[in-house]
Amino acid sequence: MIIANENGRKSIGVPDKLFGVSQKAKERKAELGKDKVIDSTIGVLLDDEGKIVVLDSVMKAIRMLGPEDYAPYAPITGLPEYLEAVKNIVFIDGVPEGCHIRACYTPGGTGAIRHAVSAYTKPGDKILTSDWHWSPYNIIAQEIGREVATYQLFDENKHVNYKSFDAELDKILKVQDETVVIINTPAHNPTGYTFTYADWDNVLSVIKKYKNKKIAVLVDIAYLDFSGDAHEYRRFLNKLVGLPENILPLIAFSASKGYTMYGMRCGAIMCMAPTKEIADEFRDVVSVQSRGSWSNGNRAAMKVIANILENPELYEEVKKEREGWLVKLRRRGTAFVERAKEVGLDIIPYDSGFFITIPCDNPDEICAKLQEKNLFTVPLSKGIRVSVASNTIDECKRMPEIIKSLFI
Amino acid sequence: MIIANENGRKSIGVPDKLFGVSQKAKERKAELGKDKVIDSTIGVLLDDEGKIVVLDSVMKAIRMLGPEDYAPYAPITGLPEYLEAVKNIVFIDGVPEGCHIRACYTPGGTGAIRHAVSAYTKPGDKILTSDWHWSPYNIIAQEIGREVATYQLFDENKHVNYKSFDAELDKILKVQDETVVIINTPAHNPTGYTFTYADWDNVLSVIKKYKNKKIAVLVDIAYLDFSGDAHEYRRFLNKLVGLPENILPLIAFSASKGYTMYGMRCGAIMCMAPTKEIADEFRDVVSVQSRGSWSNGNRAAMKVIANILENPELYEEVKKEREGWLVKLRRRGTAFVERAKEVGLDIIPYDSGFFITIPCDNPDEICAKLQEKNLFTVPLSKGIRVSVASNTIDECKRMPEIIKSLFI
Repeated sequence: MIIANENGRKSIGVPDKLFGVSQKAKERKAELGKDKVIDSTIGVLLDDEGKIVVLDSVMKAIRMLGPEDYAPYAPITGLPEYLEAVKNIVFIDGVPEGCHIRACYTPGGTGAIRHAVSAYTKPGDKILTSDWHWSPYNIIAQEIGREVATYQLFDENKHVNYKSFDAELDKILKVQDETVVIINTPAHNPTGYTFTYADWDNVLSVIKKYKNKKIAVLVDIAYLDFSGDAHEYRRFLNKLVGLPENILPLIAFSASKGYTMYGMRCGAIMCMAPTKEIADEFRDVVSVQSRGSWSNGNRAAMKVIANILENPELYEEVKKEREGWLVKLRRRGTAFVERAKEVGLDIIPYDSGFFITIPCDNPDEICAKLQEKNLFTVPLSKGIRVSVASNTIDECKRMPEIIKSLFI
Repeated sequence: MIIANENGRKSIGVPDKLFGVSQKAKERKAELGKDKVIDSTIGVLLDDEGKIVVLDSVMKAIRMLGPEDYAPYAPITGLPEYLEAVKNIVFIDGVPEGCHIRACYTPGGTGAIRHAVSAYTKPGDKILTSDWHWSPYNIIAQEIGREVATYQLFDENKHVNYKSFDAELDKILKVQDETVVIINTPAHNPTGYTFTYADWDNVLSVIKKYKNKKIAVLVDIAYLDFSGDAHEYRRFLNKLVGLPENILPLIAFSASKGYTMYGMRCGAIMCMAPTKEIADEFRDVVSVQSRGSWSNGNRAAMKVIANILENPELYEEVKKEREGWLVKLRRRGTAFVERAKEVGLDIIPYDSGFFITIPCDNPDEICAKLQEKNLFTVPLSKGIRVSVASNTIDECKRMPEIIKSLFI
């Protein structure tokens, strides 16, 4: 019998927990009625009727597409007007001086992370991210023979544990000459935490100690446009300028959330290189990587983003429409956080975004018990995740007490 | 200075020959006028005015899409209705008995090849294809630490050189326990050759000798729908049924050419497994690989294919419209081949498809000289490639003599 090569992939044949729980929630709703069940498993923004939010303004841009936007191949690194648009979306207040930007289309944030790890580490290398993290980071690393190491995101006072970051980075760089550090901020998945300027200072001062190592700092901004004030929540980008040449800041951009284009697979990997040479090398390498992974990208998706950015009125419409949903999302988050405080439910520090995490020792058991109470959440390795993006304010107010009742 | 890891990628920073030549052709046309220049570099089907052919019937299917087809994530392996559609597109006369089919969305044929190599070989392994081959196979293999080895496609009598195939496969399997053999047929890129049943018998009897090795036979059918009679050109698939369990037939499907959806990145990897267990393992492995490479796929593109297949009238329209273009393409090919014969120009055996190849020792030099004569072709390592898909019948009739004039 032929058998595929495992090649370090650890999750072959492991059933998808998330899918399993979502399926159960659906079945329970069908059985008991929608209002009797809280489904907090869905990773996309839903309206108060439980339907996926699709920005009308983005649909308008999709309707503008013609045959020539769907049919031809895009260039390998992406349509130039798309790459320009992504730059303008990320740097709304202009590209900081001394910063050489290059970008390349990737299928969503996943492709961006894949490209960063493939370019800036070697097979066998470890990359570093926090203990709370989006679990596909592991699969992405494994698929190309790398491995994820983690530091403790928070110390006992719920401050970012940069000492743990230092210790773990040190362990890695004792055995390898290069690594990728992934920081998912703002509105971190799954905790909703946002790195403060002080967090950035601490973490960057640790990284700067390793003068003879090559460290790519990959900022996963998947939830940027559903965090908070667009200008304020981008200001951290300035911290990434003027770093030594052995540190390369990279941005993983995704249009999935901010433009409700999840299914169109539209993202980008972008460098903020300190020199032109490093930036050009980045472009050359990711171009080869794209050719060798998926070739060119979804032209229509790129054109949608380009059309929006090239049409100021439409861009205003997108921003206004999104702002309405952002306000709603923030209200949902606040409702959950305030109620958690009232009932004494301990949560991981939440700032913004789709998810909130409750730490616990026995997440699978807690999730199962919550299901008995018709509340469906996602078990993580050290806690459970609720998705305020997918619940009404009323549900967000009800969930903390239900969860707390299991922690007596 | 930070430097990306080369990781065996050999083409970092190498300028793209194809792009360079296409650009030159465009400039020459602008300078001398369209009718004075023959651009035979383009890898997509063009009409007689030099515009990309987009099937109106496919555009009709695109116009049927609603917000719910663009916005949500598709399942990791693809929409079930898409996977069913792909199965029905490939096996128009029904799935052969004793054959367990599983399929998974991939971004174009590139993603399918990537997945096959990643699943059925180990880092450091060699895979096998013919000396004439689509050059990105090399980049795809390199990107995940594999390497392409080649056999001579033709012997001195222009018959498929299965002895060379045997010798090269033997070399590979002396040092590794598994490999992937890529056979691009029908309408091979770049030669236009189509494997005969006798070719299949010869090649499979070689493969069957290696009873203790695991060999995935990946058939790249990118040009299937622009080869010839749909039933006749699929009949070889029956040769892939009933093989020993150490041989796994895989199909790399692409909607790029057959549905003129190049820019939508819609393909699939499919297994024709001899047992349910092997088929299920395939599905589990490619699912993890997708999660770790691009996550889910372009939902809208999948829905277009599903809509076409679920709508018999529309499917008929697609087939009829495509048939018209296939007839045109075959006439272009025949025009070139017949004229080549008349002027005594030696070509690699061409059956059908987008490209024809002329063998020569100094392709770069020949291409440069052809450019002086306002004919733009693509240099390969051992010949030059013309694209009858992109030229008029008249141009196809003129090209052989121009090329022949350089071989005196």
